[in-house]
Amino acid sequence: MGKVRLGPQTLIYPMPVLLIGANVGDKPNFMAAAWGGIANGEPPMISVAIQHHRYTHRGIKQNLTFSVNVPSIDLVKEADYCGIASGSKVNKVEVCRFTVFYGKLGNAPLIEQCPVNLECKVMHILDLGSHALVVGRIEETYVSESCLTDGKPDVNKIKPFIYTEDPAIHYQAFGEVIAKAFSVGKELKVRQ
Amino acid sequence: MGKVRLGPQTLIYPMPVLLIGANVGDKPNFMAAAWGGIANGEPPMISVAIQHHRYTHRGIKQNLTFSVNVPSIDLVKEADYCGIASGSKVNKVEVCRFTVFYGKLGNAPLIEQCPVNLECKVMHILDLGSHALVVGRIEETYVSESCLTDGKPDVNKIKPFIYTEDPAIHYQAFGEVIAKAFSVGKELKVRQ
Repeated sequence: MGKVRLGPQTLIYPMPVLLIGANVGDKPNFMAAAWGGIANGEPPMISVAIQHHRYTHRGIKQNLTFSVNVPSIDLVKEADYCGIASGSKVNKVEVCRFTVFYGKLGNAPLIEQCPVNLECKVMHILDLGSHALVVGRIEETYVSESCLTDGKPDVNKIKPFIYTEDPAIHYQAFGEVIAKAFSVGKELKVRQ
Repeated sequence: MGKVRLGPQTLIYPMPVLLIGANVGDKPNFMAAAWGGIANGEPPMISVAIQHHRYTHRGIKQNLTFSVNVPSIDLVKEADYCGIASGSKVNKVEVCRFTVFYGKLGNAPLIEQCPVNLECKVMHILDLGSHALVVGRIEETYVSESCLTDGKPDVNKIKPFIYTEDPAIHYQAFGEVIAKAFSVGKELKVRQ
């Protein structure tokens, strides 16, 4: 099996579609981000890469709070719009008809229609070049009641989606379950 | 639509399955990580959360290099095994029958069988609590020739998978394409 070198590329799979929220002045605004992931377990933290010039970034620096909202497939148009338009020119909340609520931090706007919402306090902002890596401590988690099964979040009801660039720039749904984690690998223990 | 508060949780979708590689002493070792994401565009960087006590982390701190390998569905057992076993006790490369190669950095081990490999140089290590957030600059990208279409990486050939915890701890395949990104949201522009 041969390998081809492509030079330095931002190439991992899957990437999420996250709607990052911040109040800019008094106005709630949301941008789409595919570059982020969980950053710490205890206490729970998340990191998101945001271009310095982004309108949302201004709000994050002002308030040192932000939100992470996981959209469902039903919101794919709205999520995409949040990645196309800039809050400096349009009111995305109005265009997307988002119902915004606030939690314990008071100034990190959350989207009612998104099944999962994280309220975050900024811990670090690393200037890495084109982007700032914003690391936030997750202060509270909200899940839509309709997306729970036996009191636990259920990915089949949440219906999140993936951002893919290859071979084309698409959003993809989650597919079939292929194996049980922390389990299927045990079969290889016989080789130890 | 009501919301339920679940307290601070590491709850985003999707999470990747990444095999993080490092030489510990002279021995290549790989661990599975679901907590990571792209951290910067120019230059390309990636961040991964790793528990301090992990064997792989020792190698990362020693060499200040690491690799990120994206497994395909065909490697689900091997990937899971890398998340169960510790390199301090077993030789995961032998058990998984990985063919290891090295690239321009010389000491970041890469897995031939994984369709996508990133070679990284450590830029920052942030101690966030239970985990260290390791930020690496992507120095080179390798893609298996068999996973290219017209010279570009093709997700349908790479066949990566997702780590899900809810409602059960599973790996899931990618599902159907639901919309074109930076496109479907334009339909909402009429509301501006």
